[in-house]
Amino acid sequence: MRIAVTLGDPAGIGPEVALAAISALAPDQQRQLLVFGDEAPLRRAAETLGVAVPTLALHGQGLGDAAVPGQPDERAGRASVAYLEDAVAALRDGRAAGLVTAPISKTWARRAGFAFPGHTELLAERLGAAPVAMMFAGARLHVALATVHVPLAEVSARLSAARVRDVTGLLAASLRRDFGVARPRLGVVGLNPHAGEGGLLGREELEVIAPAIEEARAAHGAACTIEGPLVPDAAFRDAAGGTFDGLVAMYHDQALIPVKLLDFEDAVNVTLGLPVVRTSPDHGTAYDLAGRGRARARSMQRALQLAFEMVARRAG
Amino acid sequence: MRIAVTLGDPAGIGPEVALAAISALAPDQQRQLLVFGDEAPLRRAAETLGVAVPTLALHGQGLGDAAVPGQPDERAGRASVAYLEDAVAALRDGRAAGLVTAPISKTWARRAGFAFPGHTELLAERLGAAPVAMMFAGARLHVALATVHVPLAEVSARLSAARVRDVTGLLAASLRRDFGVARPRLGVVGLNPHAGEGGLLGREELEVIAPAIEEARAAHGAACTIEGPLVPDAAFRDAAGGTFDGLVAMYHDQALIPVKLLDFEDAVNVTLGLPVVRTSPDHGTAYDLAGRGRARARSMQRALQLAFEMVARRAG
Repeated sequence: MRIAVTLGDPAGIGPEVALAAISALAPDQQRQLLVFGDEAPLRRAAETLGVAVPTLALHGQGLGDAAVPGQPDERAGRASVAYLEDAVAALRDGRAAGLVTAPISKTWARRAGFAFPGHTELLAERLGAAPVAMMFAGARLHVALATVHVPLAEVSARLSAARVRDVTGLLAASLRRDFGVARPRLGVVGLNPHAGEGGLLGREELEVIAPAIEEARAAHGAACTIEGPLVPDAAFRDAAGGTFDGLVAMYHDQALIPVKLLDFEDAVNVTLGLPVVRTSPDHGTAYDLAGRGRARARSMQRALQLAFEMVARRAG
Repeated sequence: MRIAVTLGDPAGIGPEVALAAISALAPDQQRQLLVFGDEAPLRRAAETLGVAVPTLALHGQGLGDAAVPGQPDERAGRASVAYLEDAVAALRDGRAAGLVTAPISKTWARRAGFAFPGHTELLAERLGAAPVAMMFAGARLHVALATVHVPLAEVSARLSAARVRDVTGLLAASLRRDFGVARPRLGVVGLNPHAGEGGLLGREELEVIAPAIEEARAAHGAACTIEGPLVPDAAFRDAAGGTFDGLVAMYHDQALIPVKLLDFEDAVNVTLGLPVVRTSPDHGTAYDLAGRGRARARSMQRALQLAFEMVARRAG
């Protein structure tokens, strides 16, 4: 099975971290890649890193030397979108079973006509998937998010029992299928301090999260256990200690603060709910680091390894 | 200088954790304590733990054997409030320079006529202190909170530049005076994902937190450095790595999730802004554990040690 890799914005750190991560793969894994990106940014990254570009199935946009590290522009943004659309075509026609995406810039991709909040939404639409969710997978925590890029004051209004139920189901399915956990133990985290303390500190646990857990248990209770609403300040400690295989978090920082504390560079972003595997590193284009050989490739490397593992598990 | 200790609700784990923590002190420290609580719960705790009750300056309420571990009632609640009021009297008339409080139950204290959300608010009123703030002090993190027991959906409305500025000033003062940090490096954490991303994911960073930081710098900039609004998912990792001496968090779980992950049983609650030292353990009455000898006294022990250290620093 082949895995598609997009180089992301060629003016960002994507080409560097992708090349470093690809170089760390065994040759037979390198041969399984379909790389969507141009030769010039890869060659420049190779010079920066002092490595050779391995032989790769490379699908470019004829960008030439136009993209300059650290100097994003519309042309680089357009290339990053084209890499992604070509990779999606490969996923749709079965040439690839998984996708690993280096970062794009939402600003520059939008100026190039990209009409989605991010990779995930484009993939969901192009691949006809719903619902989808974002999960962060680290060495110690696997956390799926009910809401993502939402101002904190709007999180409560965006939550629904249906959404929390769906994300819980997606997490259970992925832990079983992609991570080989036979009967996952899931925890659904509360929204409020002390998980609302019986309604004194907020009612979402009673009115949204607990009903969602009931629905999720009815739908998936044969294949997993589901506890909650958990007290947030205990849930992540307990999960890190091994009490849960995965957690459903209600908002971005509830998940990301503990994930980055515990699993910083090892954390990988996984999209749940797609018909294909999709992973990505847990960082952005970092234009300020691009072209300096200072970007750390660890998360991209983990994203690639995890994509191989997930594709193998699904196949086998 | 003497330190007052309240035993908290005698039906909870307070007497056990207090006795265990007191027993771990050196005899000359034990002689510096004024203990507000009754002999019977302490004696019962001593039996449970298999230790002797040391000689202590004990100020009781004549409760006798009325309080049964794990069976809270109004009488125990009333005793817990009376212990606290007597300890406050000792602080007011200078018999004690610090206070360590074992947990009370808000429910049972309220039924006994206690009209405050918690210890902190009573202390602020009785000791004429404003503003006050809660800080969690662990081995790796010191975090002060701009809001505490507030439903997540109401946090944004409760924040103000004045409050964030005040808490920042209290944290700076405490790190200097109580923890011996000559020129503290403070970080003020944002509210929204990515600290609002320039307004795209929320405007509180621009409209409330950044102005608060400016005001705090104007007032305290000679005595500390203040950075922010920090990206929340990076701030705690950076602070744990030593970049900051203390952080100001915007809401309960933003602080408590990382504090409990990193410093679980070592975390102590410190009240900032009082004219006296006040610390407490980072747990509640835990009625389900009371009388079984299973409650962990580590946080109470740290609270006592820290109170001694803070009182010594303020005196010296």
